[in-house]
Amino acid sequence: MTREPKPISSEIAWSTSDRITVRGLDLPGEILGHMGLAEFSFLQLTARRPTPSEARVYEALLLTLVEHGLTPSSLAARLTYAGAPESLQAAVAAGLCGLGTVFVGTTEGSARLLSEALADDDGSADLNRVAADVVAGFRERKQLVPGVGHPVHKPIDPRTPRLFEIAAEEGLSGRYVELMNLVGAEASRSFGRELPVNATGAIGALCCELGLPVRTVRGLGVMARAIGLVGHILEESENPMAIELWQRAEDEATAHLRP
Amino acid sequence: MTREPKPISSEIAWSTSDRITVRGLDLPGEILGHMGLAEFSFLQLTARRPTPSEARVYEALLLTLVEHGLTPSSLAARLTYAGAPESLQAAVAAGLCGLGTVFVGTTEGSARLLSEALADDDGSADLNRVAADVVAGFRERKQLVPGVGHPVHKPIDPRTPRLFEIAAEEGLSGRYVELMNLVGAEASRSFGRELPVNATGAIGALCCELGLPVRTVRGLGVMARAIGLVGHILEESENPMAIELWQRAEDEATAHLRP
Amino acid sequence: MTREPKPISSEIAWSTSDRITVRGLDLPGEILGHMGLAEFSFLQLTARRPTPSEARVYEALLLTLVEHGLTPSSLAARLTYAGAPESLQAAVAAGLCGLGTVFVGTTEGSARLLSEALADDDGSADLNRVAADVVAGFRERKQLVPGVGHPVHKPIDPRTPRLFEIAAEEGLSGRYVELMNLVGAEASRSFGRELPVNATGAIGALCCELGLPVRTVRGLGVMARAIGLVGHILEESENPMAIELWQRAEDEATAHLRP
Amino acid sequence: MTREPKPISSEIAWSTSDRITVRGLDLPGEILGHMGLAEFSFLQLTARRPTPSEARVYEALLLTLVEHGLTPSSLAARLTYAGAPESLQAAVAAGLCGLGTVFVGTTEGSARLLSEALADDDGSADLNRVAADVVAGFRERKQLVPGVGHPVHKPIDPRTPRLFEIAAEEGLSGRYVELMNLVGAEASRSFGRELPVNATGAIGALCCELGLPVRTVRGLGVMARAIGLVGHILEESENPMAIELWQRAEDEATAHLRP
Repeated sequence: MTREPKPISSEIAWSTSDRITVRGLDLPGEILGHMGLAEFSFLQLTARRPTPSEARVYEALLLTLVEHGLTPSSLAARLTYAGAPESLQAAVAAGLCGLGTVFVGTTEGSARLLSEALADDDGSADLNRVAADVVAGFRERKQLVPGVGHPVHKPIDPRTPRLFEIAAEEGLSGRYVELMNLVGAEASRSFGRELPVNATGAIGALCCELGLPVRTVRGLGVMARAIGLVGHILEESENPMAIELWQRAEDEATAHLRP
Repeated sequence: MTREPKPISSEIAWSTSDRITVRGLDLPGEILGHMGLAEFSFLQLTARRPTPSEARVYEALLLTLVEHGLTPSSLAARLTYAGAPESLQAAVAAGLCGLGTVFVGTTEGSARLLSEALADDDGSADLNRVAADVVAGFRERKQLVPGVGHPVHKPIDPRTPRLFEIAAEEGLSGRYVELMNLVGAEASRSFGRELPVNATGAIGALCCELGLPVRTVRGLGVMARAIGLVGHILEESENPMAIELWQRAEDEATAHLRP
Repeated sequence: MTREPKPISSEIAWSTSDRITVRGLDLPGEILGHMGLAEFSFLQLTARRPTPSEARVYEALLLTLVEHGLTPSSLAARLTYAGAPESLQAAVAAGLCGLGTVFVGTTEGSARLLSEALADDDGSADLNRVAADVVAGFRERKQLVPGVGHPVHKPIDPRTPRLFEIAAEEGLSGRYVELMNLVGAEASRSFGRELPVNATGAIGALCCELGLPVRTVRGLGVMARAIGLVGHILEESENPMAIELWQRAEDEATAHLRP
Repeated sequence: MTREPKPISSEIAWSTSDRITVRGLDLPGEILGHMGLAEFSFLQLTARRPTPSEARVYEALLLTLVEHGLTPSSLAARLTYAGAPESLQAAVAAGLCGLGTVFVGTTEGSARLLSEALADDDGSADLNRVAADVVAGFRERKQLVPGVGHPVHKPIDPRTPRLFEIAAEEGLSGRYVELMNLVGAEASRSFGRELPVNATGAIGALCCELGLPVRTVRGLGVMARAIGLVGHILEESENPMAIELWQRAEDEATAHLRP
């Protein structure tokens, strides 16, 4: 074995006996008491401090992602906690494992759609035409257009206008937001039913406005939902439902097999 | 099977076609753009809004927990991402699974110590005596006193004075903080070496001051560290170290077996 | 930083361009087609090949652990799969996270009870007296005696006599099995209700007969249940229940909140 | 909410006070002591008992997947165990989370390639031509052909001939095995370097010969590796490397940041 080791490095944090530094800032002296959690998470993920406007839009977007009620993910966390209450961290982990292509990946989908559609845009692209091409492409591939329509929130998703309003207030409603809205309108026309921009489409558009790489988008959902899951586990510890859900499921699902 | 189903309920969130409500507040109208992420997470976990002072102390405490550099947890997340880059959520989950009794549980330990020691306190207990009893108890059971001393941050942990300073600024430095400091002093005397309050001791004390139940404390570490882990995974996606660490480990650990 | 690196080593496996060796055996030439899966797993965990008798007892014990129907763990795996069907591995992981102190830890408990009770036994201990002391100890600490009684399988757990029968056939029913049975009898007498040895008690006793360290016991449950979980996820992919369970739970649990 | 509940059902297992039945067989009477672990896992996954020949091939394939030495996955499990030694199950879970598209998904890839290529085959397809088309397709899409070539095992992967030999001995070396070999030969010719069938290609081919659905294939890797991971965690508990690997990584990766 004569393999030459390659160097490894990390730019995130370091510490010595008397100092702790994250992203170049002194944790006790420049972060604690001076920054908000959302602002610090932006710094942690992107290696730069957001402007106050960016921080407000980014915070709204995270707030949207924290809590979605009883979801498959929060039920998985509760069921896990029922078996291993000594490992709260593993119950959160179990809940996160289900944030894949079906439930949180759609946020990634709309961010990818927008960033690819405007990858070479110098500000002169005809957004109506871009929207038409985007929708036609998904139609042709028989795929759902990400970020539009919602099974429950009809006719509109109440989070979308609020998120876009905050972005506008902060001067961060640009061409990605415009294109997302046009994609919703075009999809509604093309598929012949109401398909307005949903919360994941709004979040995807705002991530693009904030300059966050597409792969970051799923990460936002994961870290925000971790907060929500801790809330569900604490409620489960006081007002449990997991054992009851299990017994009902077992009774019903195997009744036809039992003598 | 004549088991009677028991009702299940959750107080956290609900939604209808045009409304989304979390902890009794309208998400678009009362949360987005109106609350900070830390404030909202306090609400999610405790079902009540923190006062501005509580929010500032709580936020400082979360900021302390987000990022600890390259840890076993962040390395586990990076190694997992190297094998399943399509599942960022599972890489975060893997990282969280290791936040148990060795690394994050100590925060829980100091919160438990303090809340048990002052469980019946009406404000008149002699804290010097309580501290002496607490330390003597751990000594007798040959256990480490949680929340004091640090292998790296010597002679003092720079996070502790800053966290206590913020708590004092906000009028939230009470008997738990006082007792924690006395425990540190008593432990130093009793064990004959410097054992000042470390960051986990400070966090445990502040959780008690905020009235958070002990089982909440580990949850704070888990959700804060989820943010940190997303940062590590994004760095790994641009500047990877996992494959190199693996190859070095494999080469070295099995060299004595290979012919 | 002048820390001297400490050497690391692993004895499990190594490979070169033309050889792959596990626990000292050539994988293609000495394992594939020559060993059973249970036998190989015994080797992997203990670094020694089991005798044929040990292999048969060990295999029976693993077979007992694979599948327990719809459990909180298999429901968590199914709910996770519903959200991230592209990550079957993460759905299994979510299911495993709940195998803690409530559901699989009890196997560990009975193995610990037995190995501690006979730690200094040279074969001359009076097992009736040992059983009485063990039960008295749990009674005094107001703890459940691990490995006896079962909420469903009454009056006896049908797995126990079969596991003990196989052990007897293979000459592996020794003092641990005897003590476990005496503990069941003594617990029944002491608590005034039928508390015969359950499957986890039988498994704990057989692990001790096989000389497996206590910390191995939970590992057996984890690896066996991984097989069971894959079966549940494959069934979920063809005959799903997760989405239905989620919708029912959400409807019922938040009905009182909705207008 | 007037949603009508849909029925749920599972065919895997059921139990009553005196019976436990898995896949229609009585666990104590027909499984324990009567079946092997691999045979039982085939039944659990496919709802049918394998023939003895199928069982031997399937077992060889699982044995191949159990243990691959120190991998990113086993290192993630060890690092997780170092932080939460009380949750062995969560350490295995962390290790499994990384079995995605990079390391275990390739098995799935070759099974998919083969099953799609022979989906309409009535036994008369010209396999040379099929292999040429398959390789040309991957070339055109600039994708790696799954199941051929290996970075370490050159010129051949020693597991492949042994797996194919066992299949031939059992009369289970059919057109999938033949096609996989032809794909390897064609890939070698087309790309101008040695690309013989590797272990994942052999496993994919054997899964097809056994009639296992493609989505089952990753499941085999996951459940087999769970066994391997328990072995690594037990070794870590006696001869740890995680803390050392962490300290080395942290020292090196952040040396350039520290003063």
